[in-house]
Amino acid sequence: MTQSSKPRTLDELRAALRQFAADRDWDQFHSPKNLAMALTVEAAELLELFQWMSEADSTTLPPDRKAKAQEEIADVFLYLIRLADKLDIDLGAAAAEKIALNAARYPADRVRGSSKKYTEY
Amino acid sequence: MTQSSKPRTLDELRAALRQFAADRDWDQFHSPKNLAMALTVEAAELLELFQWMSEADSTTLPPDRKAKAQEEIADVFLYLIRLADKLDIDLGAAAAEKIALNAARYPADRVRGSSKKYTEY
Amino acid sequence: MTQSSKPRTLDELRAALRQFAADRDWDQFHSPKNLAMALTVEAAELLELFQWMSEADSTTLPPDRKAKAQEEIADVFLYLIRLADKLDIDLGAAAAEKIALNAARYPADRVRGSSKKYTEY
Amino acid sequence: MTQSSKPRTLDELRAALRQFAADRDWDQFHSPKNLAMALTVEAAELLELFQWMSEADSTTLPPDRKAKAQEEIADVFLYLIRLADKLDIDLGAAAAEKIALNAARYPADRVRGSSKKYTEY
Repeated sequence: MTQSSKPRTLDELRAALRQFAADRDWDQFHSPKNLAMALTVEAAELLELFQWMSEADSTTLPPDRKAKAQEEIADVFLYLIRLADKLDIDLGAAAAEKIALNAARYPADRVRGSSKKYTEY
Repeated sequence: MTQSSKPRTLDELRAALRQFAADRDWDQFHSPKNLAMALTVEAAELLELFQWMSEADSTTLPPDRKAKAQEEIADVFLYLIRLADKLDIDLGAAAAEKIALNAARYPADRVRGSSKKYTEY
Repeated sequence: MTQSSKPRTLDELRAALRQFAADRDWDQFHSPKNLAMALTVEAAELLELFQWMSEADSTTLPPDRKAKAQEEIADVFLYLIRLADKLDIDLGAAAAEKIALNAARYPADRVRGSSKKYTEY
Repeated sequence: MTQSSKPRTLDELRAALRQFAADRDWDQFHSPKNLAMALTVEAAELLELFQWMSEADSTTLPPDRKAKAQEEIADVFLYLIRLADKLDIDLGAAAAEKIALNAARYPADRVRGSSKKYTEY
């Protein structure tokens, strides 16, 4: 497979993951319950990279850490695409809707520079 | 904003989230360490939907649960895009690379129908 | 129930939680798989309290935040006790063993003041 | 150290962990924010053991899996004790209070055998 033929868009990635599971007969393990578990596990593996690191250090990772972060980020992404597919949810549309919802919920001129969102709930 | 103008691709979503944070001066909160925490928190909120549900039930969610799942999936996705952006990681390329790596690691003809991947580590 | 009659030790808490589940016929939901999910969900709810907070601020919580932290910490603890009970694991003994293992793994005179443990893996 | 001298109670474990951190000068890494991250990471490592396993299988772990579960449970417990100590929270009292609160919230005669708690929120 040439570099240029690699799946890159959400649609291509979803199709590639469907094929991947079908080729291995792994659909049987991919209940939404299990995929949500796997997604959380991968998110925590990503979190682990940062757990004893200062916020400042987390902004400039050395190459080996960045490579590790990239792999964990990819794992989260793959399970997220797979879970959305299994639940028949359009990932791109869901994200677009949530951005619109957040924009209405947090008007820029009212929350600018404030961490209010983050401290009140 | 018309429906058709909503961001949908990875590039469009990344740009929209950059603008969203800039408009609110929220970049100051978005260290990779904090974003990894937020990502994990959202993944766990998604997990919560399934925690007392059987695997079978998780495959056919009632509409209100599906809507909730969609929102949590969007939250995970948005933080993932934001974190990748902050770390200068190309999300689509990272996913494509990981699929290729997984394909090499789990050849279809050797692991078909087996949960070996899942039980050995 | 008087204050002094409240369960406090690991043994008392385990017994109280067994009774609690039996009284409600909730054992049917308490598979180790489900309890591990619930435990992670509660840990993430605890994590959420700190996600946009600086490390320094996290050391001196205002009263309402401390009360919230206490409740989430209790939730994690209750599910942990319940899960250990279901797996027939002695929580106190397991902790003691792990401390001894860690002491052997990280000799004080070799790792003092170093975050090596935290950056190598 | 003889078996009988190992710390077992919550008070003994808290004291042992304080000493452990002091001996290694690791207090500097143990902000509540960081400890909450470490706790969540360990909870997810525990979760990982169950992610592709059926609920039924999770109730009867083979010995190697049980040993692994015991170690991860201990890790969660140690970070929980440490975090509670850093926040000046009495773990046993917090658990007792939460059990009393849950008992009031879910009266046995009203919720018996029902998963209502788990599906409404």
